[in-house]
Amino acid sequence: MASQEGSARRVAELDTPAFLVDFNKVSTNCAKALAQCTELGVTLRAQTKTHKTMRLEKFHVMVDSRVAVDVLVANTPPPGKTWSAYLAVNCGYNREGVWWESSEGEELACLMDKSPSVTFAGVYVHCGNSYSASQPRDVERVREETIERLLHLVGRIKARGVACPVLGIGSTPTCSHPGPSMRQLTELHPGNYIFYDAQQMVLGSCKEADIACCVATRVIGHYPDRNQLLIDCGFSGLTKQGTGQLPSGCCIFRDQPNLKLDKMTQEVGFVNAVKGHLNLDDFPIGCMLFILPWHSCATAAMYPVYHVVEDDAVVAEWRPTRGW
Amino acid sequence: MASQEGSARRVAELDTPAFLVDFNKVSTNCAKALAQCTELGVTLRAQTKTHKTMRLEKFHVMVDSRVAVDVLVANTPPPGKTWSAYLAVNCGYNREGVWWESSEGEELACLMDKSPSVTFAGVYVHCGNSYSASQPRDVERVREETIERLLHLVGRIKARGVACPVLGIGSTPTCSHPGPSMRQLTELHPGNYIFYDAQQMVLGSCKEADIACCVATRVIGHYPDRNQLLIDCGFSGLTKQGTGQLPSGCCIFRDQPNLKLDKMTQEVGFVNAVKGHLNLDDFPIGCMLFILPWHSCATAAMYPVYHVVEDDAVVAEWRPTRGW
Repeated sequence: MASQEGSARRVAELDTPAFLVDFNKVSTNCAKALAQCTELGVTLRAQTKTHKTMRLEKFHVMVDSRVAVDVLVANTPPPGKTWSAYLAVNCGYNREGVWWESSEGEELACLMDKSPSVTFAGVYVHCGNSYSASQPRDVERVREETIERLLHLVGRIKARGVACPVLGIGSTPTCSHPGPSMRQLTELHPGNYIFYDAQQMVLGSCKEADIACCVATRVIGHYPDRNQLLIDCGFSGLTKQGTGQLPSGCCIFRDQPNLKLDKMTQEVGFVNAVKGHLNLDDFPIGCMLFILPWHSCATAAMYPVYHVVEDDAVVAEWRPTRGW
Repeated sequence: MASQEGSARRVAELDTPAFLVDFNKVSTNCAKALAQCTELGVTLRAQTKTHKTMRLEKFHVMVDSRVAVDVLVANTPPPGKTWSAYLAVNCGYNREGVWWESSEGEELACLMDKSPSVTFAGVYVHCGNSYSASQPRDVERVREETIERLLHLVGRIKARGVACPVLGIGSTPTCSHPGPSMRQLTELHPGNYIFYDAQQMVLGSCKEADIACCVATRVIGHYPDRNQLLIDCGFSGLTKQGTGQLPSGCCIFRDQPNLKLDKMTQEVGFVNAVKGHLNLDDFPIGCMLFILPWHSCATAAMYPVYHVVEDDAVVAEWRPTRGW
């Protein structure tokens, strides 16, 4: 995506708050994930759950008279083909899907394999329990446990004579901490790595410089008595996710390590010093600050448009879909 | 708004999660607020900050060479007229505006009064500190303190020979607990009363039956081992606001007092019993539940369309504006 010199708007011209996407960082993050999967000999299944720049349709498909699956697709299958369906497993996260130890797993795989409505594609697990990790070693433990459990279920499915072509695991933390055991899988499907965020940085999935999105906001008030700045980004521009997780609040002010987002109302943020005194004159009314969000999936969902930037030029606009 | 018999969709046909607005409750809430203002002899200044169904434009207007104001308007003023501008005061909430005791208040009023760019309309205060109240008596204390402080500043402005036609206070909790001291004002500008929400119910601003909006969601999973239902509404359909505020989580399940929204991921909610055992068979897969949100301003902002309902008929769609 080449910058259109002369015609492109500058970041400084944007109304705020605005959601910015650094195109070069997105490209680098995608290339790194792809290279990592190539090295492991697995497929990278691209997800759109963070940026939602592709409209997916939801279909309710009957597997047999008792069992239905919800299918999310970008395109309907070609004539004569059926939907590819995955069996969702929960190997420790305890969200949706069948429990890896339960015989329901192989029963459902058999049902899907026999169904005229769907083609059984394989197994899928989102190991979101990796988000509870306090250090990279915990993420690695979740990764190993998830793979071991998934392979156990796959062994039981195969023992029933059912082919299981796809073995996929996701979660950005585990996929950002790859290990050789992943060679036993066929695909990875992390969701957040395209943008990353402060949460992923804390989990060790990325460095601050890899975070490819931010919220641009402007200083709209000086309150010397409170030694406080007001900015035009409140929870409707950032969400309250991550509150209390960082010394700087629920986010990181890029290149401003002593700024703390102390609290937010709907459209206003209150910024104090992390430590000591804030020189308010360093942040004149109208000056722009750039916020790296705690959870980019949540923050991105607050914006009708993403401004794609290269340095300080706005080179494109991406309009995410709304809805589910 | 008459229901279009025969042609209207039914609530049960909607994709979920969906944001529903009960038209009759909205009408009643608006009529009540208007009647209350009429009785007090003040104007009701309608706000759009909760539902945002009207696009406002932001203009930056110079009051003099040093002072600027941001003006939010639905329409530009007729030729020859200037912008009406209010002085924002913070009489205890400590967000934006001048502090009521500060001489900056009367200085800014004088500046605005002399400016060729704006017409000084009066003073405006949002007493958002009423949201910290734990009981109606605390809301009333905030109301009285705010009015007393505002009148003190207005007295000082008038002593400088500046007319101050509008004396307005807002916040839904204070305006939902009116008192005779409000007769000294000229307008009220609550924001949330059109929809109300669980937070306002806790603050005593409304009853549960007055809450005019809800999120329709469907049961998508049964987990007997965890005695848990999964629903298709996570934080991207509700926000996490109000987490831990109620025995039922951050919201209320309408007509289901024993359901608790235990936690949420992006697009999934986990529902347990408030007390005792949940009979999962009472909530078959696909059945609809209706969630009264903790903070309707935040939840409404998550939806590209509001489905306006009368009983179980969808009689209209309102499309809120995005952005700020």
